[in-house]
Amino acid sequence: MTPHPHDRSSQEQLFDDVCAHARQTAVLGSVESLLCWDEQTMMPPRAASHRAAQVEAVATLVHRQRCDRVYGERLATLAAGPLVRDGSPQVRTAIRLLSKDFAKHARVPERLVGALAKTCVEAQQAWLTARAASSWSTLEPWLQQVFSLKRELAACQMPDADPYDSLLDDYEPGARWETIAAQFSQLRDEIVPLVQACAGSARQPDDALVRQRYPVADQQRFVREVASRIGFDFHRGRLDTTAHPFCSGLGPHDCRITTRWDEHALPTALYGVLHEAGHGLYEQGLPTEWYGLPPGEAASLGIHESQSRLWENLVGRSPEFWEWCFPVARAAFPQALADASAARIQESLMVVRPSLIRVEADEVTYNLHVMMRFDLERAVVHGDLAVADLPEAWNERFTRDFGFRPPSDAEGVLQDIHWSAGLIGYFPTYTLGNIFAAQLMAAAARQLPDLDSDLAAGRFAGLLSWLRSHVHAHGRQLESVALVEQATGQPVSASWLVESLRRRYGTAYGLG
Amino acid sequence: MTPHPHDRSSQEQLFDDVCAHARQTAVLGSVESLLCWDEQTMMPPRAASHRAAQVEAVATLVHRQRCDRVYGERLATLAAGPLVRDGSPQVRTAIRLLSKDFAKHARVPERLVGALAKTCVEAQQAWLTARAASSWSTLEPWLQQVFSLKRELAACQMPDADPYDSLLDDYEPGARWETIAAQFSQLRDEIVPLVQACAGSARQPDDALVRQRYPVADQQRFVREVASRIGFDFHRGRLDTTAHPFCSGLGPHDCRITTRWDEHALPTALYGVLHEAGHGLYEQGLPTEWYGLPPGEAASLGIHESQSRLWENLVGRSPEFWEWCFPVARAAFPQALADASAARIQESLMVVRPSLIRVEADEVTYNLHVMMRFDLERAVVHGDLAVADLPEAWNERFTRDFGFRPPSDAEGVLQDIHWSAGLIGYFPTYTLGNIFAAQLMAAAARQLPDLDSDLAAGRFAGLLSWLRSHVHAHGRQLESVALVEQATGQPVSASWLVESLRRRYGTAYGLG
Repeated sequence: MTPHPHDRSSQEQLFDDVCAHARQTAVLGSVESLLCWDEQTMMPPRAASHRAAQVEAVATLVHRQRCDRVYGERLATLAAGPLVRDGSPQVRTAIRLLSKDFAKHARVPERLVGALAKTCVEAQQAWLTARAASSWSTLEPWLQQVFSLKRELAACQMPDADPYDSLLDDYEPGARWETIAAQFSQLRDEIVPLVQACAGSARQPDDALVRQRYPVADQQRFVREVASRIGFDFHRGRLDTTAHPFCSGLGPHDCRITTRWDEHALPTALYGVLHEAGHGLYEQGLPTEWYGLPPGEAASLGIHESQSRLWENLVGRSPEFWEWCFPVARAAFPQALADASAARIQESLMVVRPSLIRVEADEVTYNLHVMMRFDLERAVVHGDLAVADLPEAWNERFTRDFGFRPPSDAEGVLQDIHWSAGLIGYFPTYTLGNIFAAQLMAAAARQLPDLDSDLAAGRFAGLLSWLRSHVHAHGRQLESVALVEQATGQPVSASWLVESLRRRYGTAYGLG
Repeated sequence: MTPHPHDRSSQEQLFDDVCAHARQTAVLGSVESLLCWDEQTMMPPRAASHRAAQVEAVATLVHRQRCDRVYGERLATLAAGPLVRDGSPQVRTAIRLLSKDFAKHARVPERLVGALAKTCVEAQQAWLTARAASSWSTLEPWLQQVFSLKRELAACQMPDADPYDSLLDDYEPGARWETIAAQFSQLRDEIVPLVQACAGSARQPDDALVRQRYPVADQQRFVREVASRIGFDFHRGRLDTTAHPFCSGLGPHDCRITTRWDEHALPTALYGVLHEAGHGLYEQGLPTEWYGLPPGEAASLGIHESQSRLWENLVGRSPEFWEWCFPVARAAFPQALADASAARIQESLMVVRPSLIRVEADEVTYNLHVMMRFDLERAVVHGDLAVADLPEAWNERFTRDFGFRPPSDAEGVLQDIHWSAGLIGYFPTYTLGNIFAAQLMAAAARQLPDLDSDLAAGRFAGLLSWLRSHVHAHGRQLESVALVEQATGQPVSASWLVESLRRRYGTAYGLG
């Protein structure tokens, strides 16, 4: 008997074939991730151009695999079959999202994928030189190329969408820039006065305590202990040193985080690691049995960032956390913390101060950095701003939001690697992450009555378990907004973030 | 006008296409090398099975690229055309060797390549466990699989050759086991009495001096200085820590060496690094303009090993080297070397002592370790010895050559990773390297009248330059024996090695 095309078992066989293909694509994609991780952590400087060739080769193969004709036909058969209606929720989502991904990727020519991969590796090298020399003209031609290629990509992958939304979709599936712009504008209206109120307050937290000498070797032991304690599994991950901290998921049991070290500032490494370990906990919490398929993938970068921000700021800067952490820190740094207390160290971490560099910004002004990048890159993608005019536009906007002008491009438009790396549409996910994090933490606090006492005792498993079941376990089955709404039972709103910042920084600064 | 198939410019176009394809294959192959380097240096333990999947995926793609039908047809056209006769020497060799490689690879089914890649990654993990627990039964089933797959590979890739020669050809192109066995047997007849003479001598060099406390941090600075001084370029390479030292060429400007550290034995890291940096100098000396093509590839592992052994033993253990190195070492280790001298430290490095572990063996007995592995693995490949009988065969042969029986399999048959990694036919290249190194060094000494005084002054550029022009620059254009004969002007013979060992250890042990 020839099986009917909609015969159950033939559909299941088809689904298995499709999954095997998608998993194989993910395995190759993870090879590309290793190339990029190694480039930033280990690679000798003169190997850069060979690395570009390697990344281009693998990216091309990944793309070819993603657009495989037979794979596409199988997906189309599945999408027209019974499984997409009556399979398990994971099976239904997998078919739907793999079909969406296929349609998007199949529209992108292989030449463009190779050109993007290669150009971005080379542009990143140019960025290193440009930033070191504060030389915009070194980077400009590269950014011209990158923005031009990304605009071409936007038009290919989602021809009917706004080009910025098309790029955004790679990082925050389903998001629309107009919604984000409205949310951000509301948030900016609240944050600017909060920053001003902090600046004008008679009570000013002092961070001298955390800016003493903290020997790097001691910091290394200390942050590993903290990362392990919150649940980061070093058997499935590692911690290295880079100029810019990041987290890279290289496989279901291979999540690598990095940080930088400043002997005279404890927060640099501590909050670098809490942040990246927060990303890492998400990676380590995704369902490994669905590796390489939507139910085993991160929902979005905004959700990813919500996990890092939650551990970094909402846990890591709380008085409860420092009740547990202070004795650990004092054992690690007996000299610097001899006369300190949990309350004093916690307070010293709540300084709000407009500053030049995004990655060094405090929790409140950070969002202002993000919003200006979102507006600038969007203007370039929409053709409202020329790449050549970015430095001036940057400086103008910065002056408006922060009250002073960047003294150099190195501390201005050249400070971030993102645009050189082709990460356009990526910046807004940072503030989306803050918005999601505040809303998730408020819900967790409602549902976990012992949360404060648990944190104060260094018991982080309850919170992690709540995040595992409400966020991590769902993979990419829901878009970010739907996921947060399901987890919290409330519509997504920036008001939780506003409330959290006002309350916590209001206390620190003694605001009314 | 339609170009005639043998038209010059169409042939050149064809050659360019073939080169581009081969280079692309090399780029992908170098991605596989990065996966393997990372596995041994950086990868978190639980990532092993995902790494196996990554290696399998890339190895399969490399194989597919190697066997590409159109590529094979183009090669066949070139091989029948005028370039193979009247192209430059490099062009002629490239066509000839790429055709040989294609024929060999095209006969191997993709399934076998994937199975080998995957099995070997997993077998290496099993080996780690087996060695730690000294448990042969943990490894045995894996070695059964590896030897069986490698026998299958041997039969596929060179169906008319002896199966061991077929495997050997991957490491020492063109070599024949019968020639090697004859050379080794002659060498063994000289080395066994030399070891006995050393053991029976009234004068015994003492290595207590190099077995004091040498702080690891100081060793790290010291060996980097030595490696840089002999010419290893850290802008095109790096040095890491692994349980077993190795050198991996990940691209034309990315050569990574590793070592291990023993706080109570200076030679462990110093000779580990001199050895691996010797490999690295060869990698860094290959013609980068021919990257990915035979004129830019290493000639063989025997030639590779000749470079490492030359720097490790013939340079690094010489009185001249220590004339330069001693003040450097004393500045690095002022306590341990306070009362030492160049002569005393050099003498302390000339101890000959039969021991269990190959990688810890002295320069003389090392060859006995290699020869027994060559005989054992050959017996398994030829079907004269069962995998299950390896431990007993190992212990018997070891007792015969070294005079005592290994107390455990961990210190016996389980000590090396090679068989688990599928490296069968690889061991003999170590002693071939010693044979080639001695012959090359003797020729260099004849042609460089200032060699001794140069070494004594820390001027290594003359020797390196001789090796660059006589060995490195030729890539894989000649098979190893022909290359050594061309470089030295004399037929290859183990007599240079015998002479070198007799002379140098005769002095150290005061033999007649």
